[in-house]
Amino acid sequence: MLGLGVVGSGVATSLQRKAVLLENLLGRPLELRSILVRDPTKERPVRLPAGTLTSDPAVVLDDPDVNIIVELLGRVDPAHKYICRAIRNGKHVVTANKDVLALHGSAILGLALEHNVDLYFEASVGAGIPLVGSFRQALVANEIQSLHAIINGTTNYILTRMVREGLDFEVALKSAQRLGYAESDPRNDLDGEDAAYKLAILASLAFHFKVEPSDVYREGISSLKPADFRYAGEFGYAIKLLAVGKRDGNKVELRVHPVLINQDHLLAGVNDVFNAVRVQGDLMGEALFYGRGAGSKPSSSAVVADIVDAAHNINSGVSNRIPFGYRSQLKLRPIGEVVSRSYVRLWVADRPGVLAQIAHIFGNQTISIAACVQKETNSATQGAEIVILTHPAREDSLQGALSEVARLVSVHEVASHIRIEDFH
Amino acid sequence: MLGLGVVGSGVATSLQRKAVLLENLLGRPLELRSILVRDPTKERPVRLPAGTLTSDPAVVLDDPDVNIIVELLGRVDPAHKYICRAIRNGKHVVTANKDVLALHGSAILGLALEHNVDLYFEASVGAGIPLVGSFRQALVANEIQSLHAIINGTTNYILTRMVREGLDFEVALKSAQRLGYAESDPRNDLDGEDAAYKLAILASLAFHFKVEPSDVYREGISSLKPADFRYAGEFGYAIKLLAVGKRDGNKVELRVHPVLINQDHLLAGVNDVFNAVRVQGDLMGEALFYGRGAGSKPSSSAVVADIVDAAHNINSGVSNRIPFGYRSQLKLRPIGEVVSRSYVRLWVADRPGVLAQIAHIFGNQTISIAACVQKETNSATQGAEIVILTHPAREDSLQGALSEVARLVSVHEVASHIRIEDFH
Repeated sequence: MLGLGVVGSGVATSLQRKAVLLENLLGRPLELRSILVRDPTKERPVRLPAGTLTSDPAVVLDDPDVNIIVELLGRVDPAHKYICRAIRNGKHVVTANKDVLALHGSAILGLALEHNVDLYFEASVGAGIPLVGSFRQALVANEIQSLHAIINGTTNYILTRMVREGLDFEVALKSAQRLGYAESDPRNDLDGEDAAYKLAILASLAFHFKVEPSDVYREGISSLKPADFRYAGEFGYAIKLLAVGKRDGNKVELRVHPVLINQDHLLAGVNDVFNAVRVQGDLMGEALFYGRGAGSKPSSSAVVADIVDAAHNINSGVSNRIPFGYRSQLKLRPIGEVVSRSYVRLWVADRPGVLAQIAHIFGNQTISIAACVQKETNSATQGAEIVILTHPAREDSLQGALSEVARLVSVHEVASHIRIEDFH
Repeated sequence: MLGLGVVGSGVATSLQRKAVLLENLLGRPLELRSILVRDPTKERPVRLPAGTLTSDPAVVLDDPDVNIIVELLGRVDPAHKYICRAIRNGKHVVTANKDVLALHGSAILGLALEHNVDLYFEASVGAGIPLVGSFRQALVANEIQSLHAIINGTTNYILTRMVREGLDFEVALKSAQRLGYAESDPRNDLDGEDAAYKLAILASLAFHFKVEPSDVYREGISSLKPADFRYAGEFGYAIKLLAVGKRDGNKVELRVHPVLINQDHLLAGVNDVFNAVRVQGDLMGEALFYGRGAGSKPSSSAVVADIVDAAHNINSGVSNRIPFGYRSQLKLRPIGEVVSRSYVRLWVADRPGVLAQIAHIFGNQTISIAACVQKETNSATQGAEIVILTHPAREDSLQGALSEVARLVSVHEVASHIRIEDFH
């Protein structure tokens, strides 16, 4: 094993506690031979036989008696290098590393095929939720039409607090940090980057084409205001950070951003740190997978299952039983071509004709207004708040309209633009 | 293939439409060699090469060139006999047959092991939802603590109509029959038998012990009244037919009956013919799998995935890669020992002291009353309706209290008793 952090300790503990169960399952015991750590003398939450810990990568990676390397270091380097070295040494690799997978997955899978070993990565996305296995096996007969995923626990926790308690973003974030649900530098989660990496992995499995994290358009949640949750609620919507992959013909759109979704939809009921992935396929129809997307135990559940799978394959003398491969000739749809409904919140001067001016600009861009609400004036600010829900329109048309609207003298601010996601 | 009904036609169509995809996936084509039907001359919705259809089981089962038998006949006989014959002939079997699996699964798996072939049955429970595969692989590191499943589409559709439109049971049933969601003889669905069979399959996978359908306690939905949905709603609950499997130490309770569940729980949002299974495991925590539990396409999704899995194993030259086995020494908990909260609806005479008498009987059985409501008298019937929600109590205590209550002169009728399911 490489790494003995939160997930590593959970895996080591599970392997110990479940040793009998696993031996019954496999017909022979699993031995946790050695673990690479930075400091082998440090106190650990898990008790291990003397000599298990080492700070020398070669002890783990080059041991001829080791069959399976479990990589739980996190981040790209040196995890990526170690994974490749393990594969070149003829070892099967289990990893929970979404960064390495999203950035180098395709090359690593090629290397594994070349060296006749397997790569397992169920824990890299949605920890306790069987996603990788489902896409590779149970859903394999389907042409996947769309993915809609709440796949970042930190942001979902913050949004849940904002909607339930009307909190400001900063207050909800501080609370999440105190509880350990957000890191001290939370940008990777808040900006949608973590979700984009996970979407890159899921989309490459679902649509069978090579996706880079940079292919995913992304917007974070830090500009959402309590007012947006209030208006969304009035219109019957929840606000979620959604990772969306949609296929239409040979084009795929990949995007991570806040969305309004109908309060009646199951995804709207996914709260706190939970994750969920909705999948639409041509045969299966709509399905949804829900569970814990992170944490020591849920991640261990996935990692140990992968180790068991690897051991089954070793027991049976097979490798590459289910070949990976990019079968589709798909192209990315640029965000400008994406069609969706929108929620727009504006601060305007409280004078006659403002709404008419705005509606005129929308109309010129052939964007139909589906609903509009203007609340009574806040006389202190001499401004009025207008919220507009549009019918489906292309992103570039909408952005065009919004820049024009922002230039109107009577418009103080385009305060929010949130896409509305419908499920068909 | 055995059978060319709704599912069989779907599978044949999918194999044709997806022939290129499947060949790319497997490195060689899948050939649908022959199909057993009652009448080979009958018009079919799927176009097949001449000579594919046969009414002679031997043509399918004893063909030495056939590797995989796909059984889609339904019902126990002759499907069970044919599955065993196929296995004895050294063929791998894919089946969607929940009846055969629930009644004879254990013996068939033993026979398959003996003959070194595999049995695949993802489609037998929850069609488009990957349940069998998840329990056998992704969740394998967990001790499963509980299952809560909406696993019968017919009853879930009827309950959805009853709650949304306040319909009587009979009216909702007729409508379900008109739409093809309920059979002309719907007893198998309405009495909870179908759900009990599916729970037997899921529970044996989840808890690793042999479960017979007769081990599952069951109550159907036909006695539910619009009033129950109304009161449930007032107290914040939905009504669902739930299949429950719960492990506590070495005892397992298995039961199918209507329950009140909190309206905020995801299972309460599972509507129409959709299925969902909530699973609680020691590592994974809570997870939920949602999708279409029946129908030609969702079932084809599972059957074709199983065929692909079988073909992967044939390609790799492996069988019994993941051994089946009952590892646990578990015992059934009789329904009398099951502890739950209850909802009770009573019709009583509208006179002083009735509620006190009832409360006294509950107290004698050490059942605490959590909530109680008595609506204003219907003067025409000289009766009053009382609804009581209890704190957790043993089933036998509650049944004892209800029989005593029913014997009171001032109690006209114990109109409903529905258990309340909490999720921890």
